[in-house]
Amino acid sequence: MTKRNNQLESYIRSVRPQFEDLLAQMVETPSISSDPERVKDIHRAAKLGKEYLESFGAKARIIKTRGYPAVSGGWQGGKQYPTLTIYNHLDVQPAQEPEWRQDPFQFRKEGNRYRGRGTTDDKGPALTALLAAKYAIDQGVPLNIRFLWELEEEIGSPNFQDVLDQAKLVPRPDSVLISDTIWVSRQKPAIPTGLRGLVSAQLTLRTGTTDVHSGLTGGGARNPIAELCDAAHACVNARTGRVKIPGFYDDVVPPSSKEMKEFLSSGFEVGRFKKAFGFRAIRTEDRAKLIKRIWASPTFEVHGLVGGYQGHGVKTVVPPSGQLKVSMRLVPNQDPQKIFSQLKVFLKKHNPDIRLECDGQLEPFQGVTGGPYADALRMAVEVGFGKTPSFIREGGSIGAVSLMERAWNVPILFMGLSLPEHGYHAPNEFFDWGQASGGMRAFVEYFTQVALIREA
Amino acid sequence: MTKRNNQLESYIRSVRPQFEDLLAQMVETPSISSDPERVKDIHRAAKLGKEYLESFGAKARIIKTRGYPAVSGGWQGGKQYPTLTIYNHLDVQPAQEPEWRQDPFQFRKEGNRYRGRGTTDDKGPALTALLAAKYAIDQGVPLNIRFLWELEEEIGSPNFQDVLDQAKLVPRPDSVLISDTIWVSRQKPAIPTGLRGLVSAQLTLRTGTTDVHSGLTGGGARNPIAELCDAAHACVNARTGRVKIPGFYDDVVPPSSKEMKEFLSSGFEVGRFKKAFGFRAIRTEDRAKLIKRIWASPTFEVHGLVGGYQGHGVKTVVPPSGQLKVSMRLVPNQDPQKIFSQLKVFLKKHNPDIRLECDGQLEPFQGVTGGPYADALRMAVEVGFGKTPSFIREGGSIGAVSLMERAWNVPILFMGLSLPEHGYHAPNEFFDWGQASGGMRAFVEYFTQVALIREA
Repeated sequence: MTKRNNQLESYIRSVRPQFEDLLAQMVETPSISSDPERVKDIHRAAKLGKEYLESFGAKARIIKTRGYPAVSGGWQGGKQYPTLTIYNHLDVQPAQEPEWRQDPFQFRKEGNRYRGRGTTDDKGPALTALLAAKYAIDQGVPLNIRFLWELEEEIGSPNFQDVLDQAKLVPRPDSVLISDTIWVSRQKPAIPTGLRGLVSAQLTLRTGTTDVHSGLTGGGARNPIAELCDAAHACVNARTGRVKIPGFYDDVVPPSSKEMKEFLSSGFEVGRFKKAFGFRAIRTEDRAKLIKRIWASPTFEVHGLVGGYQGHGVKTVVPPSGQLKVSMRLVPNQDPQKIFSQLKVFLKKHNPDIRLECDGQLEPFQGVTGGPYADALRMAVEVGFGKTPSFIREGGSIGAVSLMERAWNVPILFMGLSLPEHGYHAPNEFFDWGQASGGMRAFVEYFTQVALIREA
Repeated sequence: MTKRNNQLESYIRSVRPQFEDLLAQMVETPSISSDPERVKDIHRAAKLGKEYLESFGAKARIIKTRGYPAVSGGWQGGKQYPTLTIYNHLDVQPAQEPEWRQDPFQFRKEGNRYRGRGTTDDKGPALTALLAAKYAIDQGVPLNIRFLWELEEEIGSPNFQDVLDQAKLVPRPDSVLISDTIWVSRQKPAIPTGLRGLVSAQLTLRTGTTDVHSGLTGGGARNPIAELCDAAHACVNARTGRVKIPGFYDDVVPPSSKEMKEFLSSGFEVGRFKKAFGFRAIRTEDRAKLIKRIWASPTFEVHGLVGGYQGHGVKTVVPPSGQLKVSMRLVPNQDPQKIFSQLKVFLKKHNPDIRLECDGQLEPFQGVTGGPYADALRMAVEVGFGKTPSFIREGGSIGAVSLMERAWNVPILFMGLSLPEHGYHAPNEFFDWGQASGGMRAFVEYFTQVALIREA
């Protein structure tokens, strides 16, 4: 072990109590961005983030938006140094699930596990990066390290553009590192290089004004629930998942065979996937097909059909209206606006009385898999965790990513620390010291490597 | 005007305050059979019914069942007389609709209108028949008149067989008269001669154990909401209403051209139908086609799809399960059990993971349109309201009817007094003195006529 390694290991050991203390305070601030009653907690979390940065000697600002704020800050080592911005978020998912075995907003340490809402998504990774940055800065790594902590990630980043627009407070870096993703398996670090995009929409159909008796009117009355079922059927083959909207697949770029090879090396297991998400049955048990479906293929999902009778038994009313909640995950190079237009044209033809509203759009993201940043990242992960990472894709969408890509046009890379068993968006969420300490090593190595990259 | 008519008219005038008083007491007893908190009110209504009968010199009993009781009673004039049982129900629909302009369970008289939940469905008609019967008995009409008042009609008569099984307390009559139906138009009395049957069912599909993130799993995860939409689509063409279950139409007896002629003479108007039920659009504007659809054709309705996300906006979860609530209205000679089996076989083939549960079954009913009872009824309605009635069908189902038909195998006829504008099952329900007084005339005439019928 080199002297540098000894020093870093001793730093990591020594900051553990501080890491745990910072994480505890942050977890015990229930910054649920989707809950309007948590406004104060969101602002408290932002203030805490700013104080954390300042306590390490960084300069920090709370960035106001039309919605919730963000926190931006860092160390300005020298103008000649490249700048790296690390993105995390400090807001969390709600935690009403009955399965919680503890108060989700009370931090609990159990050996190497840290329990509570937000521990792994994404407060733990944020503070891991912060402590690693503190070390690198103190060591004189020639890099300006900045943090950008969003507080609206869990609600789709509605005001993140506002944040990016404040260019003086949130300067354009030379590259971005996102730390908000999950490995495929504890055994193998996974680095996402692409994200799916999203179009979500509501289909509303109103054919009457009030619930009517299906005996008195049935056969004559239009049935908006049945018609919305029919619309869902027209859009997607529910068994295969094949989307039937004309033109939907036109712009899809399928993964290359090299990418597929990387995907297959990720440690992805069909059985673990089923177990992790509690599935009784899935659309395919073929590993390669399943991976391609969830990481690199677009979807059409029906999330709910509002309206009609939802109680016990069957009440034979024909309701006056219904609303179908749907979304489509998109892959490179699908364009959310174009896809939404295709849906609109198709529905207009299929059932002109259905009113279509867009709920949200996120562009798919395709990152770099080669070049100095990807090389630095691969090496950093190897140093941090002693294992070669796989370059994979994420099936989900991170709204902030495509906004940063568009605003800054710089390399955006990912170094997530969460494990599948951590319970992302699930009850009994936890983070662990293994991922935190390995993460610190990996971040420090990445900072060191990135400091050496000079633009070509 | 004959002496008899003069006497009846004077009786009707004189009993009006008593009719209103009885109706007020009954309406102010909120006998909502679907509301478990109204147990006491249901029993109070039964007790009140028994007291009403006894106050007119009839013998009456409360008939216990495993559910709510019924009231059975009447006058035993002589064993040689034929017996007529009049069926009504004393339970009512809930009344939570925000459109109510008054306390629904406070009886209000406004001129000739009687307002409150249950006034027209079915307490007003029950008391109309009671006062008419009292007159006929006092006049010595040679008929044993009995009443059978159910208190579970609005929840599908789950224990009515229990009532009929108590043959000593609920003796088999020579014919039955049901007074619980609605005219098509105020201008033209309507006598139903058939009812649609019903099969209601729940289709449950479970593919997982918990909500999962559609980004992390979408494409691989089965989507139970989408699959249930697909099942609905497989069962029915939502736009035309055509049922696609193999064999579904095999036993349907279409209405004869004579029946269709009667239907068309009923005063049914497409515009009034649309307005009465608040429809913006219906499946056909053609009068004959619409009548045939709602009175004499079977249907497949989707009442609701439970599961998934039902809140504001779109939450991109794939839910673990869903439940589709459906029902089929049946016409003569469709058999509910056969239809349910056809659905089961079809679904098993279409999507074997869907679990099908029967929620309820009611046989369609085809009554008599000719012969002495129908003649008596036609004449009674003419005498009561000064207008020739049309023999129509009802699109709805009255569970008690097919049970009585099976138990007793005697002619069952209908004399409903409700008008479309009375607001059956709707807010601001009312009954009116015009229908009550006309109804008394019609009932008295019917009793007189039926007393003369001797079995062939």
